Amino acid sequence: MIIDCHGHFTTAPKELQAFRDEQIEGLKHPGQSRTKRPLSITDDQLREAVQPQLKFQNDRGTDVTIFSPRASAMAHHIGDLTTSTHWSEHCNDLIHRVCEIFPRNFVGVCQLPQTPGVTPDTCIAELKRCVTELGFVGCNLNPDPSGGHWNAPPLTDKHWYPFYEVMVDLDVPAMVHVSASCNPNFHATGAHYLNADTTAFMQFLTADLFKDFPTLRMIIPHGGGAVPYHWGRYRGLAQDLKRPLLTDLIRNNVFFDTCVYHQPGIDLLAKVVPADNILFGSEMVGAVRGIDPETGQYYDDTKRYVDAAALGAADKDKIFEGNARKVYPRMNARLDRAAR
Amino acid sequence: MIIDCHGHFTTAPKELQAFRDEQIEGLKHPGQSRTKRPLSITDDQLREAVQPQLKFQNDRGTDVTIFSPRASAMAHHIGDLTTSTHWSEHCNDLIHRVCEIFPRNFVGVCQLPQTPGVTPDTCIAELKRCVTELGFVGCNLNPDPSGGHWNAPPLTDKHWYPFYEVMVDLDVPAMVHVSASCNPNFHATGAHYLNADTTAFMQFLTADLFKDFPTLRMIIPHGGGAVPYHWGRYRGLAQDLKRPLLTDLIRNNVFFDTCVYHQPGIDLLAKVVPADNILFGSEMVGAVRGIDPETGQYYDDTKRYVDAAALGAADKDKIFEGNARKVYPRMNARLDRAAR
Repeated sequence: MIIDCHGHFTTAPKELQAFRDEQIEGLKHPGQSRTKRPLSITDDQLREAVQPQLKFQNDRGTDVTIFSPRASAMAHHIGDLTTSTHWSEHCNDLIHRVCEIFPRNFVGVCQLPQTPGVTPDTCIAELKRCVTELGFVGCNLNPDPSGGHWNAPPLTDKHWYPFYEVMVDLDVPAMVHVSASCNPNFHATGAHYLNADTTAFMQFLTADLFKDFPTLRMIIPHGGGAVPYHWGRYRGLAQDLKRPLLTDLIRNNVFFDTCVYHQPGIDLLAKVVPADNILFGSEMVGAVRGIDPETGQYYDDTKRYVDAAALGAADKDKIFEGNARKVYPRMNARLDRAAR
Repeated sequence: MIIDCHGHFTTAPKELQAFRDEQIEGLKHPGQSRTKRPLSITDDQLREAVQPQLKFQNDRGTDVTIFSPRASAMAHHIGDLTTSTHWSEHCNDLIHRVCEIFPRNFVGVCQLPQTPGVTPDTCIAELKRCVTELGFVGCNLNPDPSGGHWNAPPLTDKHWYPFYEVMVDLDVPAMVHVSASCNPNFHATGAHYLNADTTAFMQFLTADLFKDFPTLRMIIPHGGGAVPYHWGRYRGLAQDLKRPLLTDLIRNNVFFDTCVYHQPGIDLLAKVVPADNILFGSEMVGAVRGIDPETGQYYDDTKRYVDAAALGAADKDKIFEGNARKVYPRMNARLDRAAR
């Protein structure tokens, strides 16, 4: 089985965005009451909406996608906690419905109602709802809910600890994933995403988060940002700072996906990062949608690169399936049930 | 000849830091007059101070270092324009003295008196002084003088254009280099530096800066941040955004150094980025000072990695010398004079 750990619902029916537009418009009228009106989206609309993902799964030979709301649309910097709560609930409910309609193809991961300046404790209820009621297996955690101003505490700060306690209790990991950038310095998918990945890794390297939470698991997407390319730099920094060896630091806690859109990048990742810490991911349909004229294949068809990487069969099995089952253990029961 | 395009004076005599400490202390007393007292540093102290660099040049077989003030100490976010002006002048004057004492070993690049919220036009005088009076061949340009809050306009904004006009007139390039981070999210050398590199590249990709300034040259240090590892992502983003091919975009304007501290990283860089756009650099003595137990060599002895990379002799010559002479043309006269 081939599990793609990184897919967002970028093709949702336009009714979802219409709700969001109303919500944003409503913010201009602070006196208005703020009800979360229901979405009128049918199951047939959802079936239609995920046809691109199903086709790519079929064409590329992958089986199941760990599926979460569109990352760039989380936009936690818009509005307040009520805004984010209503928006997250709707987005997560749609993911849940897709996963119920196609239980063999999609497993849910939730968006959190994060809000700049508000404690992440306010995300606990939605995480619990998604995991215990909707069968989700993880969450996306935004280290910068401000959208490019980076004024929340680092991920290793006690600010986040009550939320991590619930993650650990529920045995679900987080993918560290920022959203849209409202800072003109940072292009979202070309800078902000990768910067956040790099930033989070260095936060983990310099703190004792995983001593405090030995079973907490974080996936750093987009191949770990700049980290594998600078693996020597990080090994050297860890050494200078008297920190553990990187392989020990990440062993049970930090994982990189394979959303790196060319063969040399995946080859590097496979060479420097232990196979136990790599999860297959493509972010399909996502940030880069074109066909690479150098290969004639989609840039984000990362399965081809992993297939071609100099890795043994056992390592490829881990990357394609085994590691995801370990990192997202709640997925196993769902997949087994769906397979019956 | 082997030219290292990236070295900072990280080993300056302690009198320099004493001045800085006084300066920072003085900021607590806004009523005080703010004179730039002279530094009492002798030539012998400077000779002594750069012995580590000279020894590494000798041991590693490199010839000349393009030398600038310590990047992390620029700290443009401290104080105001007067603070930064006094500090930059002192730092640049010391670089000048080192370059005069060891003209075969060092060529100067200047720090700029950037200040958050202040137009970079205020840096023009110091750039002109350093280039026309001190014989410097380039500058370090900080895209985020705030030190991690990223509230200056992007490097492609007209905000920077008057400064670029002077760079073009003087025919000097800039290395895009941030300084210390005062944002607890960003470790300076482990996140902020690499994020800035990635950010700058994506700014260049999405704007027409080099149409407006066809001879403007920017060096992105630290191997280009995350960019070469994600070369496929950037090729795909450029394609989706209807931007030029990356190789065309960077051809005469954007260059990456080789400050990547392990062989697989340099191998990737050499594979994906045209040799014409790579400049040898080590950032010695810099961010990573240890010896890699996997190789028994210094992490930052990047010459070994370039030597071992799958590059032809002509490409290596470009990377070690030819490209630097093209990107920093004012260096040639200085080097020829020193060699006599």
